[in-house]
Amino acid sequence: MNDSVRVGFIGLGRMGQAMAARVLAAEHDLVVYNRSVEKVRELVKGGALPASTVAEACQEREVVISMVTDDNALREVTLGPKGIKASLPAGAIHLCMGTHGAAVIQQMAAAHNDAKQTLVAAPVLGRPEAVTAGLLNIVAAGPEEAVRKCEPLFKAIGKRTFNAGTKPEGAIAIKLSNNFVLGCAIEAMAESFSLIRKYGVSPQVFYEVLTEGLFAAPAYKVYGKIIVDESYDKVGFSTMVALKDAKLIFEAAEIARVPLPSGSVWRDRLLSAVAHGEGDLDWAVMARDQGRCSGLE
Amino acid sequence: MNDSVRVGFIGLGRMGQAMAARVLAAEHDLVVYNRSVEKVRELVKGGALPASTVAEACQEREVVISMVTDDNALREVTLGPKGIKASLPAGAIHLCMGTHGAAVIQQMAAAHNDAKQTLVAAPVLGRPEAVTAGLLNIVAAGPEEAVRKCEPLFKAIGKRTFNAGTKPEGAIAIKLSNNFVLGCAIEAMAESFSLIRKYGVSPQVFYEVLTEGLFAAPAYKVYGKIIVDESYDKVGFSTMVALKDAKLIFEAAEIARVPLPSGSVWRDRLLSAVAHGEGDLDWAVMARDQGRCSGLE
Amino acid sequence: MNDSVRVGFIGLGRMGQAMAARVLAAEHDLVVYNRSVEKVRELVKGGALPASTVAEACQEREVVISMVTDDNALREVTLGPKGIKASLPAGAIHLCMGTHGAAVIQQMAAAHNDAKQTLVAAPVLGRPEAVTAGLLNIVAAGPEEAVRKCEPLFKAIGKRTFNAGTKPEGAIAIKLSNNFVLGCAIEAMAESFSLIRKYGVSPQVFYEVLTEGLFAAPAYKVYGKIIVDESYDKVGFSTMVALKDAKLIFEAAEIARVPLPSGSVWRDRLLSAVAHGEGDLDWAVMARDQGRCSGLE
Amino acid sequence: MNDSVRVGFIGLGRMGQAMAARVLAAEHDLVVYNRSVEKVRELVKGGALPASTVAEACQEREVVISMVTDDNALREVTLGPKGIKASLPAGAIHLCMGTHGAAVIQQMAAAHNDAKQTLVAAPVLGRPEAVTAGLLNIVAAGPEEAVRKCEPLFKAIGKRTFNAGTKPEGAIAIKLSNNFVLGCAIEAMAESFSLIRKYGVSPQVFYEVLTEGLFAAPAYKVYGKIIVDESYDKVGFSTMVALKDAKLIFEAAEIARVPLPSGSVWRDRLLSAVAHGEGDLDWAVMARDQGRCSGLE
Repeated sequence: MNDSVRVGFIGLGRMGQAMAARVLAAEHDLVVYNRSVEKVRELVKGGALPASTVAEACQEREVVISMVTDDNALREVTLGPKGIKASLPAGAIHLCMGTHGAAVIQQMAAAHNDAKQTLVAAPVLGRPEAVTAGLLNIVAAGPEEAVRKCEPLFKAIGKRTFNAGTKPEGAIAIKLSNNFVLGCAIEAMAESFSLIRKYGVSPQVFYEVLTEGLFAAPAYKVYGKIIVDESYDKVGFSTMVALKDAKLIFEAAEIARVPLPSGSVWRDRLLSAVAHGEGDLDWAVMARDQGRCSGLE
Repeated sequence: MNDSVRVGFIGLGRMGQAMAARVLAAEHDLVVYNRSVEKVRELVKGGALPASTVAEACQEREVVISMVTDDNALREVTLGPKGIKASLPAGAIHLCMGTHGAAVIQQMAAAHNDAKQTLVAAPVLGRPEAVTAGLLNIVAAGPEEAVRKCEPLFKAIGKRTFNAGTKPEGAIAIKLSNNFVLGCAIEAMAESFSLIRKYGVSPQVFYEVLTEGLFAAPAYKVYGKIIVDESYDKVGFSTMVALKDAKLIFEAAEIARVPLPSGSVWRDRLLSAVAHGEGDLDWAVMARDQGRCSGLE
Repeated sequence: MNDSVRVGFIGLGRMGQAMAARVLAAEHDLVVYNRSVEKVRELVKGGALPASTVAEACQEREVVISMVTDDNALREVTLGPKGIKASLPAGAIHLCMGTHGAAVIQQMAAAHNDAKQTLVAAPVLGRPEAVTAGLLNIVAAGPEEAVRKCEPLFKAIGKRTFNAGTKPEGAIAIKLSNNFVLGCAIEAMAESFSLIRKYGVSPQVFYEVLTEGLFAAPAYKVYGKIIVDESYDKVGFSTMVALKDAKLIFEAAEIARVPLPSGSVWRDRLLSAVAHGEGDLDWAVMARDQGRCSGLE
Repeated sequence: MNDSVRVGFIGLGRMGQAMAARVLAAEHDLVVYNRSVEKVRELVKGGALPASTVAEACQEREVVISMVTDDNALREVTLGPKGIKASLPAGAIHLCMGTHGAAVIQQMAAAHNDAKQTLVAAPVLGRPEAVTAGLLNIVAAGPEEAVRKCEPLFKAIGKRTFNAGTKPEGAIAIKLSNNFVLGCAIEAMAESFSLIRKYGVSPQVFYEVLTEGLFAAPAYKVYGKIIVDESYDKVGFSTMVALKDAKLIFEAAEIARVPLPSGSVWRDRLLSAVAHGEGDLDWAVMARDQGRCSGLE
């Protein structure tokens, strides 16, 4: 096949597996690596070659995709003794699709540049189910030619790819900003639901006013419903994980010298929730924390 | 006609005229009053009877609708020497459809109660064009029977009516909270657009990421576009008017003892914008103010 | 006596009585008025003439001092049918020594100007005990000549007078700003005491570090001690009264278009305290509210 | 001499040199180490023994004092291959007197514990001049016996030592909280000076009202004067350094789950100042940033 790309894939959590499966389905030549080896099985059945080390997953690859959990893991697989930088051929691309901090992305970009490799950052917007359904959105940034080379992979993995420019950290800025706006929306609901409750109004009615009017969008429908139902124990995204995201957001803002006063409000809310033992509940539990501050709980 | 209601209508600004026209079109018996008399003309041509005083607009009416600009005007037409309270028959309803503060609504409700009249608060969500197109949403609250009696009018004027309970100020709480959430959404965009700009990302791309994803709703589409285009001089809702709204929101929150930290953020933003001479621009100009704080303008 | 001024004094609460007593002791010609007449007794024994109306307290006076509880009371005694404006001779001075809002002061200044009278605003810093001990500080502002004419009275009443310029609202701005800085100091302690407590540190030790170092001042000594002792029920200044002050501060800031983000933080704190039934405790109870948000209480 | 302690001293910046000189003057047995060797000279003249490695500075020492610039430097000298942990005798004490984060202190305490050594954290409050004048305050925390063993050194170096309990990070919490309260005080002045300026009041007068009243303390006298004089270029503590401190404060607060809303306000202020090119000015320049937001600059 003409367009077939030689791909390595490192990091097979739930998202990684779903994404790698789509790369395979698009008939690219795929080598897969994961620290705990059992997660490789399904993909190998489907035709992927298993690698037993990061280095092996980089050999003769045109593109190595990483989808690892956090900045430390990214640093390790990239800069470690037999990591991506040390193992990837010159001219090849490290396509980093996890959600990472702006600082580590800048550091990786420089490191790969030293090794005549290229970093493309392409964090994704969506969950494993969206990947499987072909509905994932991708935000990609990096040197133009490198981004172009990744396009067949973006087509394989997602629905739409947004171009965030030539600096990898630009894609990070968009991904984190999208999460930031979501945090603000939840906090806005938290505050306003407390207000209408204290005026004796039914939360369900206010929910309908919002979501059938100016705020007829998933952010408000999904999280507003959790707040109305107080179903914080069905966890889509936990308070603790949101706090980690907040950390990346504030790091990016500090690097760029941008005050984020609304962000401070909801980060404080998350901290207070964790201080009340709600770290493992869905982050919409911010609404309960606001309720406490309003004398409602 | 069986369902025809004897209605008085006080306050014929752009919204009031459009609403009264719909009352008339639904064949209710309509008397209209406005301080400057020329605004009555069109409606009188259409079959409404002109009143030359507030008192006249109340005579033998089952319902008097008020749609006046602010709390002071409401106090005046309601409690003034020949105002609604003094002129409306016992048993009749004052249907207050303007956006007012919780305090004044509580005060009016008590006053009408003393006169054996009833106050129903039913602020609206939408602009004159929405009224004319029959797309207006209404939030109504007040004693059950009184709200029921107003239903033919709600049907005449709007598309959908949300029931906010039996206390008139409940409807106010919803209307103000809806505006509050909108202010938060604009502020969230203001902050995040500054962030992505400092990472060299195109505002248009971030706009698409938001509005084709979690935030595919009018609030983000309309105001995000103004921010991307920097078209703050096409004013839908000015900074100064938004500041007035903020005042009502904070008054309502103070009465109910609800902290609104996100609200303080965007009210400060409005104040700063006004301090920079941007009081007459659209309130999306908050994004420019945030840009200033980020060293961007 | 040459310097003797013909003074009227309106408003004999605890502060007013203490201040009037000093005016009397300095041998000025004093007429006193209070709504509830028994508060006049002590001063009359000391040589003051009792007035039975505001108008009477203004007759032939060079200066009328007002020391009333709030903005509504000030409007009433000043602009009411037989109020100060209507009764004070042209050329005379209304010396307003209560703590009022910037808006009402601007309104009064204009009203007196219309009547060829002059408003001097001179709010005070201190409590009744400080007055009696001759330790009161005064902040005075108004037209230069008028302020100069009031100087014998400032000398009689206080220790030191700060000159806040020629606009009466300037004195208001200083008085409110001083309270504002105090609120910020209490909030800063509230937050930091929570932090050190969560690290297992004794509040008393942190109190000593603060007050024997950079913060060796009454604001920290007095309020820090209340926080360490959790003696919120010995009320110097209650949460509810502080909330009123916050309202005046935010009104002044809105008029001047000045964002006060730190102020919003402590006003929210007060609201939350009131929502928890702590409105009648000393406002240092902000520290307990912060403790709640930190999972400490 | 009976009380003489065998001391190693690592890190001879301006503070370190001044502190080591006092250790020497108190006739303790002192070995000194610094990366750039010329800083050792003066102390060696005074009787200290020079060490050419960290390891050498640890040999046969009862206490090794570290006074290094930041968390990375501390990690390196402590945990590096021939660092303090590897070199200090069992039973000896690492007395860490720099200002560090809570996380690194917890990590060091655990590491030393593994090596049967003890960590005492004892950050200081004051500048080099205060050290030389014998006016330094110290905040010490760690296992009781270890703190007791350090007392002769505290006496040698400082004026007063505050006991922050048995966990080293407790001392850190106090040091950072003290800086936090200072940031809040400067921000409070920033906001209030903008307010009074917009009412036409002289900053000098407001400065006097504050510092001769409730705020008669160094924090307000020193920083208030910088604000009144706008002498931001005489830098005691720069915006960039303050931003580093803010980072440590927020890290400590996040570990302990304590929201710091006032802290977010002044950190945003610092970020905005840096975004305006004021990173190298004194952090009191926050007042100018607030002025900008108020339309004053």
